[in-house]
Formats: sequence, C-alpha cells, structure tokens
Amino acid sequence: MHRYRSHTCGQLDASAVGGNVRLSGWVHRVRDHGGLLFVDLRDHYGITQCVIDPDSAAFAAAEAVRSEWVIRIDGEVKARTPETVNPNLATGAVEVYVRELEVLSAARELPLPVFGEPDYPEDVRLKYRFLDLRRETLHRNIVTRTKVIAAMRRRMDAAGFTEYSTPILTASSPEGARDFLVPSRIHPGKFFALPQAPQQYKQLLMVAGFDRYFQIAPCFRDEDPRADRLPGEFYQLDLEMSFVTQEDIWATMEPVLRGLFVEFAEGKPVTEVFPRIPYDTAIRKYGSDKPDLRNPIEMQAVTEHFAGSGFKVFARMIEADARTEVWAIPARTGGSRAFCDRMNSWAQTAGQPGLGYIFWRSENGALEGAGPIAKNIGPERTEAIRVQLGLGEGDAAFFVAGDPAKFYKFAGEARTRAGTELGLVDTERFELCWIVDFPFYEWDEEEKKLDFAHNPFSMPQGGLDALQNRDPLTIKAYQYDMVCNGYEIASGSIRNQLPEVMVKAFELTGKSKTEVEEKFGGLYRAFQYGAPPHGGMAAGVDRIIMLICGAENLREITLFPMNQRAEDLLMGAPSDPTNKQLRELHIRLNLPS
Amino acid sequence: MHRYRSHTCGQLDASAVGGNVRLSGWVHRVRDHGGLLFVDLRDHYGITQCVIDPDSAAFAAAEAVRSEWVIRIDGEVKARTPETVNPNLATGAVEVYVRELEVLSAARELPLPVFGEPDYPEDVRLKYRFLDLRRETLHRNIVTRTKVIAAMRRRMDAAGFTEYSTPILTASSPEGARDFLVPSRIHPGKFFALPQAPQQYKQLLMVAGFDRYFQIAPCFRDEDPRADRLPGEFYQLDLEMSFVTQEDIWATMEPVLRGLFVEFAEGKPVTEVFPRIPYDTAIRKYGSDKPDLRNPIEMQAVTEHFAGSGFKVFARMIEADARTEVWAIPARTGGSRAFCDRMNSWAQTAGQPGLGYIFWRSENGALEGAGPIAKNIGPERTEAIRVQLGLGEGDAAFFVAGDPAKFYKFAGEARTRAGTELGLVDTERFELCWIVDFPFYEWDEEEKKLDFAHNPFSMPQGGLDALQNRDPLTIKAYQYDMVCNGYEIASGSIRNQLPEVMVKAFELTGKSKTEVEEKFGGLYRAFQYGAPPHGGMAAGVDRIIMLICGAENLREITLFPMNQRAEDLLMGAPSDPTNKQLRELHIRLNLPS
Repeated sequence: MHRYRSHTCGQLDASAVGGNVRLSGWVHRVRDHGGLLFVDLRDHYGITQCVIDPDSAAFAAAEAVRSEWVIRIDGEVKARTPETVNPNLATGAVEVYVRELEVLSAARELPLPVFGEPDYPEDVRLKYRFLDLRRETLHRNIVTRTKVIAAMRRRMDAAGFTEYSTPILTASSPEGARDFLVPSRIHPGKFFALPQAPQQYKQLLMVAGFDRYFQIAPCFRDEDPRADRLPGEFYQLDLEMSFVTQEDIWATMEPVLRGLFVEFAEGKPVTEVFPRIPYDTAIRKYGSDKPDLRNPIEMQAVTEHFAGSGFKVFARMIEADARTEVWAIPARTGGSRAFCDRMNSWAQTAGQPGLGYIFWRSENGALEGAGPIAKNIGPERTEAIRVQLGLGEGDAAFFVAGDPAKFYKFAGEARTRAGTELGLVDTERFELCWIVDFPFYEWDEEEKKLDFAHNPFSMPQGGLDALQNRDPLTIKAYQYDMVCNGYEIASGSIRNQLPEVMVKAFELTGKSKTEVEEKFGGLYRAFQYGAPPHGGMAAGVDRIIMLICGAENLREITLFPMNQRAEDLLMGAPSDPTNKQLRELHIRLNLPS
Repeated sequence: MHRYRSHTCGQLDASAVGGNVRLSGWVHRVRDHGGLLFVDLRDHYGITQCVIDPDSAAFAAAEAVRSEWVIRIDGEVKARTPETVNPNLATGAVEVYVRELEVLSAARELPLPVFGEPDYPEDVRLKYRFLDLRRETLHRNIVTRTKVIAAMRRRMDAAGFTEYSTPILTASSPEGARDFLVPSRIHPGKFFALPQAPQQYKQLLMVAGFDRYFQIAPCFRDEDPRADRLPGEFYQLDLEMSFVTQEDIWATMEPVLRGLFVEFAEGKPVTEVFPRIPYDTAIRKYGSDKPDLRNPIEMQAVTEHFAGSGFKVFARMIEADARTEVWAIPARTGGSRAFCDRMNSWAQTAGQPGLGYIFWRSENGALEGAGPIAKNIGPERTEAIRVQLGLGEGDAAFFVAGDPAKFYKFAGEARTRAGTELGLVDTERFELCWIVDFPFYEWDEEEKKLDFAHNPFSMPQGGLDALQNRDPLTIKAYQYDMVCNGYEIASGSIRNQLPEVMVKAFELTGKSKTEVEEKFGGLYRAFQYGAPPHGGMAAGVDRIIMLICGAENLREITLFPMNQRAEDLLMGAPSDPTNKQLRELHIRLNLPS
C-alpha cells in the first residue's frame, strides 16, 4: 500500500464498502459520541468521516489528536446507517473504521480556527494565511480563481491567440501611475522598473509580426492602497491583434469573456449580445462610463419642460446658461413621499442642495403628480414629463439641473441609489456591455491645456486629418471598455502606429517630438520600420474573479495578498536590507528625520 | 471585404485559384523579373508570392515599396505554372496578381535586414529586437517556446496539477543567490525582494492543503552574467505535491517531461525509462552529477591493477594514501598513439601533469597493449585491465589517479572529451536520467564546518535519527536531479516539514533555532500547525527549450533578453531615476567616486 494514502478524502463512496483503505489529511474536527471517536479527515479533495471505537488499537492515539493535526489512518470502509447518510458530502454514504493511526505532523494551539470559519481579524488571517487558506470559502475561491485563469487560457488559445511572457525587469514606463523601481547592481545609479502593464512589449510583438498575443500578465503599480485595489501586483488578461479594426476585437473578445462568465455563472443569466454604448450616451443615460445595466433606470433630458416654467430655480438656470440641462431619473415604484424624502436627504448628505422630485399617485381615481415641483410647474408640464418618462401611478422621477459635465456623476449615483433602494437591481445576473467612442482628449483645468483622456497609445478617429482640422475636444478615440455590473472589467483601443500621427497627437498636448522619443523610445523607434495596424485590450483578472465568486474584497480571491499597508505579514516583507546589499546596489537610505 | 485581409499569408492553396483576395503583411523581398514585379508578402502565418504586372493600377505603388514595409494588396489568385510551383511553401501552388496596393506603414532604411538572416552584431539585434524577431529562425524558436510552455501546462493539468501564481513582490530569500531588491515607498528604509524561486510559497501552499501545485514561475537572481544564464529573470516549471514519497514524484514527472521531449523531438529518440543513478555512482562512472548519457563511456576503478605495479607514480600514491584510486576512462576506437597524445596534450592545457594511457593494437597477429604505462606494468596487468574494461584492438584507456574527490571533475571532462573527439556521442537524441541520493551535507573547507550540500529544505534520509547518530557526511538527502544530455534540467526533493528535524539539521551547520526562525519565518511557523509530508521539483524552462530548439544561446530562445551587461537595449533599461522617485523611495544614490 502507498506510504500515505490509497484514496483521497473525497473519493470513497458506497462502492468502496468492505475495502481496506489508507487516508491522510488534516483533522477537521473530532467528536466524542459516547466513547466512539469521530474524526472528520480533510484534504484538498474532500472530507471523510473516520470512526475509532474503544477496542481499536488506534484509540489511544486518536484521543490525543487535535484539530489541524496531519494524520494517516488505515481502516475498513463501512456503509453508514441510512439515518446517518450525509447526502451533502461526496463521501457521505460511508465511514472508515480506523485500525491504525499515525501522526504525521502535530499542530500547536491554533491562532486561527479552520472549522466553522469564524470571523477573525484581517491581520491574523494574513499572518497565518496557510491556516486561512484551509478554510472552506477561501480555499474554494482560490480553486475558482485557478479555474477561471485556466479557462481564460483555454478560450484564448481556442480563439487563435498565443501566450507570450514579457519581461518583468524593464524600463520605467510612461503610463502615468507610479513605478516600482529596482536598483541595478551592475550599473551604479541606474534602475529597472517593474511593468505597470506590458503595453509597449505587446505592441512591439505586433511590430515583430506575432499577430495574436495574449498573456496572463503580472502588473505592478506603486499606488496608495485603495479598497478596490491590492497594493503591489495584480493580473491582467492582456491581448493584442494585428491587422484588425475595433469591430474585430469586439467580435473576438465578446465570446471569450461571455463564455467565461457563462462557464462560472452557475446558471445566472449573462448578457447574450453586449450592447455597444457610446461614451456620450452612457454618460447621459447612466451618469457613468461604467453603468450597472442590472439597474433598469435610464435617465432622460427633460430640459424643455422646465424652460420658462414656474419652477424658478431651474427656469432661471436654463435662461442664464445655454449649457444647462435638466435630467430626470425615473424611479418606478418609488412613488411615495417617504421614499422621495429619503432620496432628498441622501442627496444633502452627498453635498447637494437637495434632489427635486415628482411622484404620481391616484387622487380620487385620477392620476396626480405630487410634490413641490409638480405644484410649481403645473399639471400640464407634469403630465408631459410623466408621458416622456413612461411612468404611472406609484412611480417617481428625480431631477438634477445644471451643466451636465458637472452633475452627471451625482446623477449617476442617484440612479444607482434609487435602483438599489427600490430593489430594481437583479443582483443574480451578469450584465455586460461595451462602452465605445471615448473622447480622445480632455481639458486639463489645472494646467489649462489639452491632455489625453485615456492613453496616448490610441488612434484618434479621423486620424491625422481630424487632429489637424477639428476641435480636439470633439475627436473620439478608437477606445473602448467592457463593463460588467457597474465595473470596468476591460479596456482597450486600436493603437496609433503611425509616427507622424503620434507626433501630432502629442503636439496638441504640448509635448514635442523629442519627448515622444524619450518616453516611448523602443516603441516609437519600432514604428519607423513597418508597423502593422493593431489593437487590443486588457481585462482585469482579479476583478473578473471577484465578480464570479461574489467576493467583496480582493483579499478573498488572492492567495498571498499584502495588507492595506502594503505589508506581507506572512513572509515579513518589506524588510530591512543589509548594509552589504545597500552598498552593492549603490544606494543609501534617506530616512525621514 | 475585411479592411485588412480576407486570408493570412499562409493560407492560400490551389483551392483558392480564381478567387479575389485581400492580404496584408510585410514585404519580405521584391524582385523585378523583366518588368514583372514579384513581392513576397510575409506575415506570422507564412509567405505568399504577389505579382504586379506593368498594366496593373498598382504598379507605380509597387515600384516604390521596399523591404519590411507593411502593405495591403487586393488581387486574384492564379495557379503557378508547373515549373514555378514551390513545394516547400504552403502557398507554393499559387500567386496573387495584384490589382490594388495600399501602404499601411513604410519602413526607413533597415539597421538589420530580415530576409536571409545575415549575421549581425548582438547589440544591433537587441536594440532592434522587433526586426530581429521577424527573422525566420528566431521567430520560429519563439513560437516553439510558446508551444513548449503551453504543452507543459497541458501535461501538468492532465497529471492533476493546478497552476497557482505566487507573489513577485516578496521578502528577501535565504536561498543563497543575490536578491533583486525593491525599495518600499510606504515603509521608509524597507525593501521587498523579487523571488529567486517560489520555494517557500509553494511549500506554504502544501501546508494550506492544496495538494498538487505547479507554476510556470518567473524567478529572479541578481548574479553576474554567465554564458549559460541570462541576467535578471528566468522561468521554472515549478511543482509540489503532498503526501508523496520521492518515488511518486519521479513516477509523476518522468512521463510529463518525457512526453514533452517526445512531442518536440521531431523523431529523435528520447530515453524510454529514465535510469535512476545514485549521486555516488554518477560521480564514479561519469565524473559528474549531470552526465551526458549520449556518451557511452563509463569509467571504472582499476586501482588494484596499479597497486604494487611497475608504474611507480601510481603505485607510490596508492601506497601513501588509502584514499587514492585509479580510474580508467575506456575509449573505444581511440587506440592510436596520435589520439592518445592529443588527449595527453589537452590534459596539460587543462592544468594537469598529463593523462596516462594504454592503447591496444595488433602486433604480428597478437593483441598488444602499447604506451609507457603498459610497458611499466607489464603484459599481465595490462591484459587484466583490458579484460575488466571490455576493450579490444583499436581501443584505448586513459587513467587518472589520486583522491577521487579532487580528480573526478577532471576525469569527467576527459570522458566528455574522449567521447566527443571519437564521435561516440550521438547528438541526435535526448538521453535523460535521474540522479538520486545526493549527499545532505558537504564540508566547507574555508569555514571548516558542515554546510548543506544543496538546500536546507530537503529531508535527510533517516530523519532525526540519522542526524543524531550518523556521520553527517554519510547522510543522503531525498534530493534528486533530472539530467538531459549533460545538462541539469530539473532539481527537487522531499522537503523537511518537521520543525525539530529542521532545527537539528541547521544546528549541525552551526545555525541556531533563532536563525532558522528569522530566515524561514513564514515557513517555519507554518510547520508548527500541521504540515503534510510533501516534495516537488523545479525544471528549467529556458534550458529545456534550448535543448529542444538546439539553440546555443539563451538569447536565441528568449523574446526580449538583456545583453550580457544586464542592459535592455531596446527599452533602455536600467535608466536614471528622477530625484522625485528617489525622494519618494527614501533612498539616495551612493555612486563609486
């Protein structure tokens, strides 16, 4: 028989009854039932109930074992009595009567219990991550993580992509976030940087003729810890294609990502055909470029109904500034004064003066718009608004007025709040869409100059002609995001591979050709020697896994995360360097005094 | 029709004749045949011959294109005349008559030609790597690399392993090589380290109950550049298993690695069953713990034949020191004075006094041992040696004497030299074996103390009992290598997961329990809380790909390698940091004055 096991702890079923088996695993829990000892033995594959009766030679040894000891047992598989069969357990039809028990590794008193997964402070969980990872939920999430990533690879391969690994020790990158630096020992005073993304390398791969690249790519950004981002490293499903338009990329990647969600959705509906929503439309309808489409609310402009109306606050704004619009947030089933007042109070805590509303109720058999705004604008305009929004009795609408560029975010938050509070959001589904036609430039109010709205690698729609002849702020980019349930899960673009277009695009942001050459040396040089039209995207692996697992925190889907202070409590990183190390790296500490 | 292509450049065959197609790609070369222009159009998938006749509207445009421009063409597929069919090309049955030609991206004068792959200086190739990667051999090697890695993943998955990614920003590691350090911005004066290998994490995964781990793992060692190692990063096929003996690991991994070689060997024979050679035997037979088994020469001790013989040099050494042995290197077909003298001269250039030999020739119909040694020891002893070594007419044997611990490396080199020079090595095969039972400790002559022969993570054979009761230098480890054609391609061990055995093992090297705790904090702590018996190995991905591709240099199988001065000439790394970066990282430069 094998030294440690003839079966895993998830393997034995009724067909094994009568057999002699050997199992190894962790003591999940021990129970004493009137002299009989029950040990639930656990490994990666499952749990098997082991029974030690007082006559067994193993009884004394079994009495000594405690939770999380690693033991090996030999015994006979017996059928459980019908009333003790556990249909929720793969091995629930049997139990093993133990003849021999060997302790392979004892455990000290546990700083963190495994069985039952009671809540424990985050820092204890991270310091004893090897115990935390034995807990059912986290263990299962990590297994799901590995399956999702394997499925990404399988689906990308099936779509004709090849995985290439790009360097991790590389040059400081111009992407914008802060780099992690690595001092060079051989070149005093020089530093490598860890890649924020393999953006330049994947484009170089296209220039080198590799056609369809992907990578489950580790990325590094030295940013201040945020709730929705782990410090340090994260993973992207990164991809790039040559000789494509953005339609090709959407047509290729939509089935890959949709298939992935369907594979792991456990029956939850996943959008069949992803809507392609222009950025401007997304802002107007949802107040966000990452709309949660599980929320059925779509905003509409109702400016005309307020122009010259008796609701003077809005009417005067409209008159004073041509940019003024009034947006309505229709809220089905929100038609009670109590709900409308709650929304109004929430708006005030969110720093707004308030949130105007109309709600519709039946008064003596007639439909009536109620609330101060309805009173001020009168029944005719109220009815016109109701008809435009398609609302009825028991519904409400909220109104936000001003310059949409300034209020759209708040309007979007109000939409989210109304949808959530009213239970309009079906959380048991995955709603995906493309957001397309992002603006190429934005106005940097502080520096009073144009800047790239997203990234300088994208091709402007209209090319050189647009850059030379159009109002830059009206130029769109071949740039798109994929959004799921209100989260941006992927982002990409058709790249600008034409040196003269690149130089012109930078020129408009006040950057010279020399700066382009300095910042994008390798890539800019490559574009001089035959660069194919190409584009791609990058999907956030961690975010997708979080959505699939329904986890609320990135640490719940990550093997060995750092804490929010960017420390690895398990391995004790970061730590003090030795003087020899510092000397070899040609650096000295410069500590805050 | 698609904006860029209806087909790839590797797709068109006789069945496409008569069709109108669109292709995009690089101009591989242009030829002018009596007015007709021939453009070989190349992409990742192949090459298609395009023809532009002077009547074509595209003729003027075609006259302007140069090598490595990216163009799109529209045209009609025609069958080649029988005498111009190229059977070596997938598209060799057809050519495309071009109607329209669009330049997608022009190329400046090339610093590095693609067509024909002429030799060019390494630094030019690295600076213009995007051009170098278009060259046929390197492009094909990289494609093979991706396929080998994908096959590793597929085979590991089929063997029941799951891929887990372990952190890249982690703690300084006690493995022995020099770490790359990453200054922490948030914790002044503290540093992360890049992992030399995921050794501790993979063991923690076992302690966390994950059973079968693997990873195509990036590893980082800041070592001085060496011919057989790229500066910076390299990849390991890293794996670990729980509840296993070393036999299980061999039985699991031998088919994985063998299958991989068979898959890519293109018909070359691959060892059917890997011999398991104890370390001591390998040293005695091959003078190396990474023997090239394509070389049929096996050394043998022939000490007894020299003891008390007339060859006084050896006889006196044997008498003076009980450690003295004489090893014979039998060399079939090496039986000429010229060859033996060449070996002798080589030994002298290798710093040895010389290399004694006997060679056997036929003299008047009788077999005779020739050379000074044969003369000195006489025909009887000469014949006894010949019989022991199984040699005959036209063969030779070389002799090395002394303390085997001191001469075995040279003896191994002589074995290699003889086998290579005599053409005994069949280079068209893959010979694999396991080297097992490595010594646990070695004697550190400088520090005059015991040290771990390989790594401190391995379990000593005999466990605590052996550590307490045996001469440490006789203890073997559960430690093994896999060797292919003279290269170590993998290394592994059963781990020491028992804290008390770990402490004792370190104690014998003069290290206290406190030091163990400091250096292996996470792992040592984990072993206190129920650690399963486990073991694994790590295979060198780059080395395996080199063997498969028959490449002589790691840069020939690596996408974006650094040069031997640890510089990335393409991206310009390492580079100068900004003062802001240094300030944020709490460091100052400390440059050599």
